[in-house]
Amino acid sequence: MKEAEALVEVWRGELLESSHLGHAVVCDSTGAIVEAWGDPDRIIYPRSSAKMIQGLPLVESGAADAAGLTTEHLALACASHQGAPEHTERVERWLSDLGMTDADLRCGEEFPRDEETGHAMIRAHGQPCQWHNNCSGKHSGFLTLNRHLGGGTEYVEIDHPVQKAAREAFEEVTGMDSPCYGIDGCAAPNFATSVHGLARAMARFAAAGQGGGGRDAAAARLRDAMMAHPSLVAGEGRACTELMRALDGRGALKTGAEGVFVGILPELGMGLALKIADGATRASECALAAILVRLGVLDRNHPATIKRMNPPIPNRRGMTTGEIRPAPALV
Amino acid sequence: MKEAEALVEVWRGELLESSHLGHAVVCDSTGAIVEAWGDPDRIIYPRSSAKMIQGLPLVESGAADAAGLTTEHLALACASHQGAPEHTERVERWLSDLGMTDADLRCGEEFPRDEETGHAMIRAHGQPCQWHNNCSGKHSGFLTLNRHLGGGTEYVEIDHPVQKAAREAFEEVTGMDSPCYGIDGCAAPNFATSVHGLARAMARFAAAGQGGGGRDAAAARLRDAMMAHPSLVAGEGRACTELMRALDGRGALKTGAEGVFVGILPELGMGLALKIADGATRASECALAAILVRLGVLDRNHPATIKRMNPPIPNRRGMTTGEIRPAPALV
Repeated sequence: MKEAEALVEVWRGELLESSHLGHAVVCDSTGAIVEAWGDPDRIIYPRSSAKMIQGLPLVESGAADAAGLTTEHLALACASHQGAPEHTERVERWLSDLGMTDADLRCGEEFPRDEETGHAMIRAHGQPCQWHNNCSGKHSGFLTLNRHLGGGTEYVEIDHPVQKAAREAFEEVTGMDSPCYGIDGCAAPNFATSVHGLARAMARFAAAGQGGGGRDAAAARLRDAMMAHPSLVAGEGRACTELMRALDGRGALKTGAEGVFVGILPELGMGLALKIADGATRASECALAAILVRLGVLDRNHPATIKRMNPPIPNRRGMTTGEIRPAPALV
Repeated sequence: MKEAEALVEVWRGELLESSHLGHAVVCDSTGAIVEAWGDPDRIIYPRSSAKMIQGLPLVESGAADAAGLTTEHLALACASHQGAPEHTERVERWLSDLGMTDADLRCGEEFPRDEETGHAMIRAHGQPCQWHNNCSGKHSGFLTLNRHLGGGTEYVEIDHPVQKAAREAFEEVTGMDSPCYGIDGCAAPNFATSVHGLARAMARFAAAGQGGGGRDAAAARLRDAMMAHPSLVAGEGRACTELMRALDGRGALKTGAEGVFVGILPELGMGLALKIADGATRASECALAAILVRLGVLDRNHPATIKRMNPPIPNRRGMTTGEIRPAPALV
């Protein structure tokens, strides 16, 4: 088993204060590794980076079309949104169109990450709903698929038809059996795979829509929906949103908890997956930006790039005390 | 240079999802290493874990007594507090007693970490003051020393008498020259040392008060003030506060940003310092608790211990999905 490799450095003054190790794979649509760091075979949970995979059955089953879902719905199905009105109002309407309510969700309540929404909630002495949960779009997709399949209400259980469909799609696009699963923050099963397996799946999404069958068409629609609606996939100020805008149609990106990030790069026909071993988001964002620059698809000097690849570390008087930067292996 | 060693594991279901490497040293009052993990000689910034060292000149100069400071003031001088009324009201009064105001501080404004205080501020559309800054007690100590020394107003500058005194004390108790310094989040210089050097300093604090001179007496007073007022050193719900209460007089503890924790253990005459290489607080708290249990000073079954050493990882429906636990090397 290869060791994790230094991917990101945190400097303060002249000293390397902290460092982040990890694993990353870029592969082409044949599954061949173009470049890798750390251990490509390391088994990880993709967490929310797998949402577009979990969305495949929704589209390829015909459930999405039967429910009249638009590209906005599909982008939300792939999202870890921050609970701003642009997200929650659409999810609320989606549930209403299904004849359902917040109570039909099984993701649990989550305080919205969007600051304005959160502050308004505190001022009103309010409580978050399940639709504020960053995964409420994915769960609305599960509910839409479930109505189509006629399954029971507990759609997050591992043997439920919705999750069986998710697992089948996951194992097929990653190209390997999933060795185990964990329960995600939103209560849905999250299937484990290797970093290479996750990158293979992303390469499949990258190459999709070039004459493939139902699954390929579904992958292309989900990928294109993400690229068409960057703010629905995360929200204003967030890495997924800002970096997808900076890519300007050259890629779809998705973060996952515990230091995961994936990229779908249609122009290159490549997929990318990375995992920071310690789970830090500051490092997954930096490593992602660095690899996208290295691959030539992201502008090194774009403000959204600099914000992730070389963010200054300010003190509370606004002075810069250091910076986060990619380790030499990534530049 | 020895590598960082696995100290903390993050499990979800059957899979080790993330892991944290680090360095840790326990040493006795002669400076001899009792036990170590990773690289004892790794140079680190102690960050806020050095506050009791930065407080030494305040006490040994006579400035603290001249200003009539109590053990509460001394605990606040060593604190990273969360801006609750118990902290800010005392700091406000301290400044007032010095004939000073918030404007004399040089730490910058920080939003209070105490939830009730923060929510009240949001509801009032208010803004934090400098005294809400977690370091405002340390800075009030700097101002008190500065009045005694007659230095200029910019007391955080590296060549200011207050910082020269801090450096001299730091290098003496760590037993080595500081190779460099960085600017901390509160704008004060933070002197680098080795993990071993920081542990040596803590052992010095542990053994202090047994017939030593002015510096030893100052160290004993600061240590005892921390142990006498655990909630002033951090706040309700925080690791320093809850674990010091659980130690029940057997130790003083202090966290530092970027994964640092130190322990002063007078009963054992030992000092402890640890640094998580990636900077994660969840890991520094877990490793600290595990080492204190290993040393026999912390009750393995105390709720405050379990909360740090084996915290469950819940999902947003309140189900346990995994846990954080010490790596085998620590148990």
